[in-house]
Order: sequence, then structure tokens, then C-alpha cells
Amino acid sequence: MDTAGKVIKCKAAVAWEPKKPLSIEEIEVPPPKAHEVRIKIAATGVCHTDLYFLNEGNIKEHFPHIPGHEGAGIVESVGPGVTKLKPGDKVIPLFASQCGECRFCLNPKTNLCDKNWSLQKPMFRMTCRGKPVFQMTGTSTFSEYTVVDEISAVKICDSAPLDKVCLLGCGVSTGYGAALNTAKVEPGSTCAVFGLGAVGLAVVMGCKAAGASRIIGIDINKDKFEKAKVFGATEFVNPNDHSRPIQEMLIEMTNGGVDYSFECVGNVTLMRSALECCVKGWGVCVIVGVTELNDISTRPMQLLNGRTWKGSLFGGWKSLDSVPQLVEDYMAKKLMLDEFVSHTLPLDGVNEAFNLMTSGKSIRTVLIMQGK
Amino acid sequence: MDTAGKVIKCKAAVAWEPKKPLSIEEIEVPPPKAHEVRIKIAATGVCHTDLYFLNEGNIKEHFPHIPGHEGAGIVESVGPGVTKLKPGDKVIPLFASQCGECRFCLNPKTNLCDKNWSLQKPMFRMTCRGKPVFQMTGTSTFSEYTVVDEISAVKICDSAPLDKVCLLGCGVSTGYGAALNTAKVEPGSTCAVFGLGAVGLAVVMGCKAAGASRIIGIDINKDKFEKAKVFGATEFVNPNDHSRPIQEMLIEMTNGGVDYSFECVGNVTLMRSALECCVKGWGVCVIVGVTELNDISTRPMQLLNGRTWKGSLFGGWKSLDSVPQLVEDYMAKKLMLDEFVSHTLPLDGVNEAFNLMTSGKSIRTVLIMQGK
Repeated sequence: MDTAGKVIKCKAAVAWEPKKPLSIEEIEVPPPKAHEVRIKIAATGVCHTDLYFLNEGNIKEHFPHIPGHEGAGIVESVGPGVTKLKPGDKVIPLFASQCGECRFCLNPKTNLCDKNWSLQKPMFRMTCRGKPVFQMTGTSTFSEYTVVDEISAVKICDSAPLDKVCLLGCGVSTGYGAALNTAKVEPGSTCAVFGLGAVGLAVVMGCKAAGASRIIGIDINKDKFEKAKVFGATEFVNPNDHSRPIQEMLIEMTNGGVDYSFECVGNVTLMRSALECCVKGWGVCVIVGVTELNDISTRPMQLLNGRTWKGSLFGGWKSLDSVPQLVEDYMAKKLMLDEFVSHTLPLDGVNEAFNLMTSGKSIRTVLIMQGK
Repeated sequence: MDTAGKVIKCKAAVAWEPKKPLSIEEIEVPPPKAHEVRIKIAATGVCHTDLYFLNEGNIKEHFPHIPGHEGAGIVESVGPGVTKLKPGDKVIPLFASQCGECRFCLNPKTNLCDKNWSLQKPMFRMTCRGKPVFQMTGTSTFSEYTVVDEISAVKICDSAPLDKVCLLGCGVSTGYGAALNTAKVEPGSTCAVFGLGAVGLAVVMGCKAAGASRIIGIDINKDKFEKAKVFGATEFVNPNDHSRPIQEMLIEMTNGGVDYSFECVGNVTLMRSALECCVKGWGVCVIVGVTELNDISTRPMQLLNGRTWKGSLFGGWKSLDSVPQLVEDYMAKKLMLDEFVSHTLPLDGVNEAFNLMTSGKSIRTVLIMQGK
């Protein structure tokens, strides 16, 4: 391609300061250095975590930044030493890297990687108005082009529709894997899913795939319930319809508590409810929603009585190993993606996408890049 | 025996009110009803949980009561319908029952039992000075005789020394099983054990049996360290020797955190430290110490990053199935018991035994019954 080796000027959504709308700007994306790849983004989902890093979970040193970590695109060029990717490959950028060499990558029990963006020197490869821009989550997919480490992108099959499989870069993989890999839901079990956004619905889909017989969806927005049925939810509870604590309701509904529960909101009060609605003896609560602002709490006897409290990032999938297979599973209709996409917008609709999300009107908005 | 069918008068240690010394009294122990057995107690360990129910965790309706749940004795008589036990059998009373029929007993994932004493109608079978006395933990082994449900006692081998195997009724089984059954410690792993009382030392013994290569003992009483070596501890940390939080120390000592940690004190601050000293990705923290007075807390990212927080009671052993085998293992010198016994006293030394425990001078005091 004639852009190889040159700086690319393109559009991106830039976060200049915390809690302010993103600004569509022209940015400069440099050519990839050794072991980097430059990707032309085709589409990107808008995830709650993008907003979390912009609002509550913001870190001063991370501004200005370009958000976005649920994208898909095509390799534009590669830097020296890159062997697994070449220009023209369809790829999914990975906020959860897999170097394949660190003690975490080498351990089958985890999908963490010691070379992940959050553990590295902050990446400021792109510029805007003459200023270096931080590459949030190592991916910055709210941009027509991005440049990432080769361990943070994976080749997928050539026929994959990028405006759908982008969701496997975060939300759908996260929820689906939380059920299959982290909780290891067993056939015939009873599950409770707190929060029926994209991640929660993906958990529901995972519980169904694992053979759960009861999947109880919990949300204060009853508009989510019809959608949740599509993914396999069998029952619903709206906590606002009841004066009693939600864990009491669930314990009563299930004759002692659920086998597996999932918190997909990022709310520490719900994280407690999710643990305490589990049956004693073997109930497993998986935290999926991300927040770091407050502590989670419970009484020790909740654990002494045999409940397990755990969590995972990116659904426990080792990203390079698993994402191509998840794409194949979608192509083979073993998992749904289209049904998560409630809205599509151009890149400059990103703030509207945030509004749709926070007002509970969207499941997933996918931004479609329209650049050259 | 000529006592069968008659009320037995004998000595017991009675707790008349919270936070007061126990009183040695004459009590009346009625003959066993259907599916009950009456046991002549030979010896009983004095456990921290006895003191917990007397002091911090006391419940008004549980007074007066007779404590004790780490005993061993000989069946004096059995009630109608008892088939597995007969007079003369050596037995260990079980605060953790195993009915064998409830959905918990039928599930291999747990050792809880729906017919456990804490879930039943409070048991007031014995009397003292004309008043019914509550049978704490369903066992009341601080008595020359006790009467228990048949699912709360198990026959052990005839040659077992009762003044040693009594420790398998609670503390040693609890710690040993926490390592083997709940944490499932793997060979070559690194473990941290908070609190080096009898339970903590039994955890150390379990970690060693599982093949752990580093076993770090943590206690503010350095007198415990020599004893811990006997059970397999390889290193020691006294939190009072350091100004930094203990979890930071341990993370540094282990290049990122331990594989398994165990809280054996019953202190919610230590429960947090124990979780947070675990390595991300796969670290497992098991709560073993009992307290219900305060919440445990941590930040969600501790779990999102792949740590697991769990707990168990009685070390996850299904009691009727496992205790006889643990006795056999002791007889075959596969596990230690003698080394836990730091003091022996007569029944009327029970308050001294509590003092030895709270002052950190004993590991386990065993009370030896001297009645007829």
C-alpha cells in the first residue's frame, strides 16, 4: 500500500479531559516500529469501559487519549520482525494481549499477560494538534487508523464481517467466557445474571451454551427482558418491583440460591448481592463488571459456607489462541453477534453512542468508519 | 452397661452467661432417644471456636450451654433405630454432621449437611440445676457424657488413642482439609498461612502433604515459628517486624504473590491481606478462621485479576466418610497429631485452657476426663 512507511493523517475521537464529550479530530498515526502493526479500523463497538476510563476511572496521565478497544480492521502495514500478520489481513485488536512467553501466558489457569498495555510504559504513538495522545487500552479503536503491538492483534478469517466480529474484541467474549471459562457453568444448573447490557446478555448466551436450565436475568430496565429471551434467559427480576433485597428474592425463587451468578454492571452493591444469592456449599459468583472506586464486602460466613467469589477479564480467554476460534464459531452460527448490535453510527456519532448506552436505549452501538 | 436407659449424672463445664468463666457442674444426661447415641467422653480439645461462641459470637438463646466440639469417647448406649453404632464403639462426635440424604450430602462439591445442628431446632437434652442446657455445636464435649444424633458421631478404629484423635473432630481436620480439599494445593506451589495456632499448623501440614515447595508462616507470636517448622513451614514473617502492609511484604518475597493463602485467625483485616498477597491470575485465598462480626472487603480488581476468594468449614471433609480414614492416616503416621498437643489438663482446667490459648502459650490443650 502506498501509505506504508508514511505518517497517516486520519480522523479519531479524542478525549482531551475527563468527563467531557469526545472531540472528532485529525490525528497523525506514525508507521509501525519493530513488532508493531498499523491497522485500518473498519468498525468498533462502544463499551461501557470506554466511558469508565473517561469518567469515573480516569487517570490524569492518560489524557489526552483515544478510547476504543472493541474494534476490527485490516492490517495496513507491519513493522520489522512481525511474522504472524501481513498487510491485508483481517484482524481484531486485543486490549488483552498474549505474548505467549511470560509466566502468565505459559500458565493454563489464566489469560493475563505480563506484557499487557496496563503494565507497560504508557504508549503515546499518535499525535493530535502537535501533542502526543495516549493509546487507551493499547488499542485506540475510535480512530480510522491505529498502531498496536503485534501481541495485541490477531488475524481472523477472511470472510468475517468486521462490523459484527468487532464485538469479540471485548464485550461478547468477556461475558460468554465468564460463563464458560471462569464459572464453568454445568448442565442443568441455575444462573443469575445481574445487568442485561451486552456483557450480561453474552453471559446469558454462555450459560445457555453450557446447558443451564434456569437463567434468571436481573435488570432495573424492563425493556431489556425481551432481548434477553433471545439469548436464553428464562426468567426475569426487576429489583425495583420488590422492596426486599434482591438476594433474598433470588434465594426464595431458587429454593436456597443459584449455582452461578454474574455481576455485569460494575456496582459493588450488586457484587455483594450476586455473591449472597448463591447457594451455600458450591455457589460461584463471578464479577465481570469493572469498577475500582469502592470496596466490595460481605460477611466471612458467606465464604466459609462454601461460596466462591471470583472474577475474570476478557472472559478468561487467552486472546490470540481464542479470538479466531470465536470468530469461526460465529461464522458457524454457534454464537450470536448480530443480535447484540442495536445501533450503528459513523465515528462522529460516538458521543451519541455514549448517550444511548447510559440511557439504556442501546445494547451495543457499532461505529462504522467511513474514511478513505 | 448398667447405665443404659437411665439418666446419668456427671460433671460438665457449663457456660451460664456470655463472657464469664465456665462453671464445673453436675448435670443430668438423659438416655438416647430414637436415632441418638450417648457417649462417654474420654478427651476433648479446646478450640478457639468454643471461646468465640462464649464471647464475641454469643447468642442469648444459646445460654446456658455446654461447649466442646473436638472430643472422642466411647458409646455408652444407643437409642432405637441406631444401626451404625453400638455400645463400646470408639467414636468421634461431629459438629459437622453427614446425614447422607440431603441435597448437600448428595453433592460431591460440599461437606455441608442440611441436618446440621445449626439448622435444627435448638437441642436442649441435658439439664443442670433443673434448667435445660443448650448443646453447643450439637456435641457438648466439655462433659463426661453427652448425647448426640447418630449422624453426628462416627465409629473409629478400636486402637485409636482418644486423647490424640479427638483433635480430628475439629481443628486438625479443618486446617488439613482446607489445604487439601478447599485450596487443592498443587506440588511446587508457594503458600502463606496466616496464624500458627493448631488450625494454621494443620494447614501447614496439609500444604506439605500436597507438595508445596514454600510454606510461609505468618504470626505476631514468634514463639510459634519453631513449632511450625515441625509441620513443614519453610519461612516466617512477623508482621510486627515490618512497617509495610503484610501483603506487600509477601508479594515482594514471592515475586508477585503466593499461589495459595489461608486465614486461620478469624480477623477480617487479615482476610483481606490473605487475599491480596495472592498472585494475580490464579491465586486462591481460603478463609478458615471463623468470625461473623464484621465484613470482609477488597477492591473488585483483586478478583477481576483472577484471584479466588473462598472458604470452608471442617476442611471440606464429609465427616462420616472421612474422619475414620483420617484416624487411620494418623495410626499409619501419615499425619501428625501428638505434636499439636502442648498441654493436657483435667476437665476442671477448662478456664486455664482458655487462658493458655488466648495468651498464645498453647497450641492445643486436651482435657482428659477422669470420671467413673
